[in-house]
Amino acid sequence: MEGEVGMRVAVLGLGSMGAGMAASLRQTGHTVTGFDVVDASRNAFAAGGGTAATSAAEAAKGADAVVSVVVNASQTEALLFGEGGVAAAMQAGAVFVSCATMDPDAARSLAARLEASGQHYLDAPMSGGPARAATGELTVMASGSAAAFGQARPVLDAIAAKVYELGDAAGAGAAFKMINQLLAGVHIAAACEAISFAAKQGLDLKRVYEVITASAGNSWMFENRVPHVLDGDYAPKSAVEIFVKDLGIVQDMARRERFPVPVSAAALQMFLAAAGAGMGREDDASLARVYASLSGATLPKSDGTKE
Amino acid sequence: MEGEVGMRVAVLGLGSMGAGMAASLRQTGHTVTGFDVVDASRNAFAAGGGTAATSAAEAAKGADAVVSVVVNASQTEALLFGEGGVAAAMQAGAVFVSCATMDPDAARSLAARLEASGQHYLDAPMSGGPARAATGELTVMASGSAAAFGQARPVLDAIAAKVYELGDAAGAGAAFKMINQLLAGVHIAAACEAISFAAKQGLDLKRVYEVITASAGNSWMFENRVPHVLDGDYAPKSAVEIFVKDLGIVQDMARRERFPVPVSAAALQMFLAAAGAGMGREDDASLARVYASLSGATLPKSDGTKE
Repeated sequence: MEGEVGMRVAVLGLGSMGAGMAASLRQTGHTVTGFDVVDASRNAFAAGGGTAATSAAEAAKGADAVVSVVVNASQTEALLFGEGGVAAAMQAGAVFVSCATMDPDAARSLAARLEASGQHYLDAPMSGGPARAATGELTVMASGSAAAFGQARPVLDAIAAKVYELGDAAGAGAAFKMINQLLAGVHIAAACEAISFAAKQGLDLKRVYEVITASAGNSWMFENRVPHVLDGDYAPKSAVEIFVKDLGIVQDMARRERFPVPVSAAALQMFLAAAGAGMGREDDASLARVYASLSGATLPKSDGTKE
Repeated sequence: MEGEVGMRVAVLGLGSMGAGMAASLRQTGHTVTGFDVVDASRNAFAAGGGTAATSAAEAAKGADAVVSVVVNASQTEALLFGEGGVAAAMQAGAVFVSCATMDPDAARSLAARLEASGQHYLDAPMSGGPARAATGELTVMASGSAAAFGQARPVLDAIAAKVYELGDAAGAGAAFKMINQLLAGVHIAAACEAISFAAKQGLDLKRVYEVITASAGNSWMFENRVPHVLDGDYAPKSAVEIFVKDLGIVQDMARRERFPVPVSAAALQMFLAAAGAGMGREDDASLARVYASLSGATLPKSDGTKE
């Protein structure tokens, strides 16, 4: 039923998240045009039946909603206001749905600039991986004007199982997301510190996983990431560099606000160590390998033996 | 049916945990004798219908099982082998069930000394608070010889909903517990860092709690401790000093094993700061008050206003 009942939506950024969201939007009946600066991503999207544009501005032209699935604030700014930026191409009354995790100040600044020219900006960072993007079951932490929410509603309905409406201006969505990322990053580092320390002591790691996930030491991230360590599988489900970026934003925000964050600062050092050791694009459970290499702890290998 | 079908059990340490365990043991039909060096605890136990002994050794004499509910390794050592210690009073074949959280090396040492004189030692640190102690629903992370487990079984059945059997010698139970405490301590500090940082940004903290507990940033501790901050209630459900102790043990173990633990080291500093600021005996969610006092963040007060 594509195109019969829906909006015209541009999806900018066709990596695993953007491609999944585009698919969800098409399945819900929207007319989707996609663009990615990477040829392979654009071609894969077209090969899957999507309509690929030759530029971001072309995709955005005439769209009711433009969904930005790029990585950070500077990419979002370039996409909106750089050479060939979409702000100039978007029609009046259209909404820009910004999904990147960024400093709330950056979200406020981008929104103010776009709103000045008569378009709407929804600050809408997401939670949930590619699998949930593909099934339209993301969680969105959103804030923006009533007009932005109103215009973006059909998009949100298509891509998200849960939309938190967190305020009437850009910035609140970003701020909530950063609180989540602070915790998530610390919990990944703590999980890797703990499971490697258990390995150093020669404990049965599968038993550690069983006991901890049923105890007060559990976290969403411990439960989700430690299986990668148990399997010796560091193929990137979420890469080390993501939290180098996100805990970096936390540090920048906290420094600006004169707020000490010693625990997340320590966690960031471990993500930096993993990236510095060459694992930046591998799974973030790779922090366990850093602890192991620093201590002589023995972790499981992917073939079931120990490395 | 007290005393009709059960064992003779001594419970040494009648604080909120020990008193609850003694109650569970009595309800299950065991004959319980209790002792505490604190007169008030001993008198409260007697007033509640318990049989209080005049010394630990008197309580242990003739007991089939001696349950030690003291705070740490040094108290456990003093209880067993100090002046008037129970090791000399325990009959051959009786089991000493040690519930304190301690360094695995200390557990191994205590077990070896007690086993040398013909008694059994079960390394049995617990998880779960006073409420679950009172209903016999603790979680126990236990290790010890088959004889120790066999002799302690009726006690474990009475006090625990779940018993993890983690090895055939003392030390493994303690090691698993320390992995849990590493994570739990980091997660408390991270929860306080995050919720205070949210307060500094002026976010709606109840909404933060709602969003985070449904997101990847969640932890058992975030879910459990942040409500104390939202209520401005720092009456001690678990005191700051507990994790000064337990993360201190983690640091001691890690230093000895040449294992770097930067994340839990940073968390310990925040527990030390809270204790140093005079909150050692208050709830461990007090770390949020340390962050607030260092940054000018405004947290909820117990009367519903902000402090």
